[in-house]
Amino acid sequence: MDEIKRRLAAAQKATGDAGLEALLVAPGADLRYLTGYQALPLERLTCLVLPAEGDPFLVVPLLEQAAAQASPAGALDIEITGFGETDDAYELIARRLPPRTRRFAVDNHMWAEKLLAFQAALPDAQAGLAGDVLLELRMRKSPQEVEALRRAAAAIDRVHRRIGEWLIPGRTEAEVAKDIADGILAAGHTTVDFVIVGSGPNGASPHHEVSDRVIRSGDPVVVDIGGTTPDGYCSDSTRTYAVGEPPAAFRELYEVLLRAQTAQTEAVRPGLTAEELDAVGRDIITGAGYGEHFIHRTGHGIGMETHEEPYIVAGSARPLEPGMAFSVEPGIYLPGRFGARIEDIAVCTETGGERLNLTGRDLVVLPG
Amino acid sequence: MDEIKRRLAAAQKATGDAGLEALLVAPGADLRYLTGYQALPLERLTCLVLPAEGDPFLVVPLLEQAAAQASPAGALDIEITGFGETDDAYELIARRLPPRTRRFAVDNHMWAEKLLAFQAALPDAQAGLAGDVLLELRMRKSPQEVEALRRAAAAIDRVHRRIGEWLIPGRTEAEVAKDIADGILAAGHTTVDFVIVGSGPNGASPHHEVSDRVIRSGDPVVVDIGGTTPDGYCSDSTRTYAVGEPPAAFRELYEVLLRAQTAQTEAVRPGLTAEELDAVGRDIITGAGYGEHFIHRTGHGIGMETHEEPYIVAGSARPLEPGMAFSVEPGIYLPGRFGARIEDIAVCTETGGERLNLTGRDLVVLPG
Repeated sequence: MDEIKRRLAAAQKATGDAGLEALLVAPGADLRYLTGYQALPLERLTCLVLPAEGDPFLVVPLLEQAAAQASPAGALDIEITGFGETDDAYELIARRLPPRTRRFAVDNHMWAEKLLAFQAALPDAQAGLAGDVLLELRMRKSPQEVEALRRAAAAIDRVHRRIGEWLIPGRTEAEVAKDIADGILAAGHTTVDFVIVGSGPNGASPHHEVSDRVIRSGDPVVVDIGGTTPDGYCSDSTRTYAVGEPPAAFRELYEVLLRAQTAQTEAVRPGLTAEELDAVGRDIITGAGYGEHFIHRTGHGIGMETHEEPYIVAGSARPLEPGMAFSVEPGIYLPGRFGARIEDIAVCTETGGERLNLTGRDLVVLPG
Repeated sequence: MDEIKRRLAAAQKATGDAGLEALLVAPGADLRYLTGYQALPLERLTCLVLPAEGDPFLVVPLLEQAAAQASPAGALDIEITGFGETDDAYELIARRLPPRTRRFAVDNHMWAEKLLAFQAALPDAQAGLAGDVLLELRMRKSPQEVEALRRAAAAIDRVHRRIGEWLIPGRTEAEVAKDIADGILAAGHTTVDFVIVGSGPNGASPHHEVSDRVIRSGDPVVVDIGGTTPDGYCSDSTRTYAVGEPPAAFRELYEVLLRAQTAQTEAVRPGLTAEELDAVGRDIITGAGYGEHFIHRTGHGIGMETHEEPYIVAGSARPLEPGMAFSVEPGIYLPGRFGARIEDIAVCTETGGERLNLTGRDLVVLPG
């Protein structure tokens, strides 16, 4: 609770520093980060109002008021105001903002219908993104948050360690994925966020999910999985398996990828920029002749969302700082043949980096 | 596929009729409705561009292109354009809209960050909501859609019929909810959308989800559950159970509620307005002295989203039409004591209404 109060206070200060009169935060990761309240996004507005000056307050539909009060937000000493089925919540909030409000910001994932309603209720004000304020806070994880990410990583590692139970020739990707999803829940996640099982040529499409393709002996299989733990932190780890002995060309590709991903996780340290970290892996892959087949960025930040700042991508001169947590997931994709990706979550520490996912990275050849 | 092509054509005509130059539709129910493509909402833009004149096209990140092409959208004969990690997808789309575009509309759930990016890329145009155009289409279900909702209702009915296996005194709400969630998947849903188990006084908070409260003999328990089926349609049904003989005051309240909900499902017919249908139940509940304890609207439309138009609420003069599907879910809530809600999905037909949920509505008293 003290941690949440610290976050609210830091966000309020950052709001003023950014020249904004208020942040308006609807259900989602930002609201959970700032209040502990895990509200569902609904057509009725739920909104934390965080003014640069004065007390924050939460506006909720009357029939959510008891749930809001029972949530961690109820212990924050902030006002929780309910509105009725025929009240205009946007007008209600607009009237309570400072007079002549000129700049407000909404959470990045607020629904368009709600942003447009705020724009209509505040016609003289300019809307911006709360993410520009909050990302500076959310991006730097506290020790408690790093511990929560460590627990999430350990949970998804337990699922990868069971992969041999499910990844068997003759089964479809969809069948394997169903078992993995059950395994993600059994390992201590409350939701299954994604399950990618890309076998053979499907592994060459980085965001292929699953299909009815039957897995065959000799197939490389990309398994990229993640979920959310009860305290709201996300896991995300990829391993590429071989089901039976894979083609020699795949082994060659995998060795290059492993070299790149290992070099990248070892390179993490404060001061290195996101683009420099991206280049550490890209240079190795390009040097081995696979440059054009590494078609995505190296990684994304992770916390209460699977994808958040900092993005590890060419063009980002953002220096890494202690507490930043992100994926390191280079991949090599040969269209029509196969692909491979290795992904760990890493945290930048005071002196270097810590890898949170701890399953082995050497190629695992399962019985084919 | 023909149905999806009909939807796209109808949406394009409605876009022109509304005086809009284009709809911009990001991942979500609208995109799935219009293309069959079930894309994940990500920080990278995926967007269907549906101009009032000319061919629609889909803009996706390069690394989603194979997945988009493999989705039903790939069979629609529309252009699927990929963009790279450092391209500006908003500029790319703005350049391809008709010159001097003055009015465009985005899907209601598009993230604020994406709407603001479109507003910046189209500074001379006004943004509206695609929902204003699409709701007229999505609200009126085709026979295939009604059949899909019938299948979804049958699936959630199967879960309610198993409730006696799980709802047992001495267990917590959370334990019961976990079993129900497994049951929702086992009954043929692909996702669990919500599980409310409100026992005793928790039943008096309509949107209470679950807690560690131990269910006791004599408790009334509100069980409101739903999921999404493989073809993308949602289920939603509430039954209130008694675990052992409940207080006499609860039986009395339940009889009033049952009378109200039955009268409402029987009243459904074309031409009746949403507010009239709301009043049918509200009048009965108010007449019995519980008016102040029916603190929400009667219901919400349902289809590819659990909550969509038409809302069955005071103040809505919208007449019901054949093909409209919505929940009928009056409730009575006595703070600190208990609550009850009965919910069925109903479809307006040419001559009256059809109730899709078919489990019994008399109070079920489970072994206490």
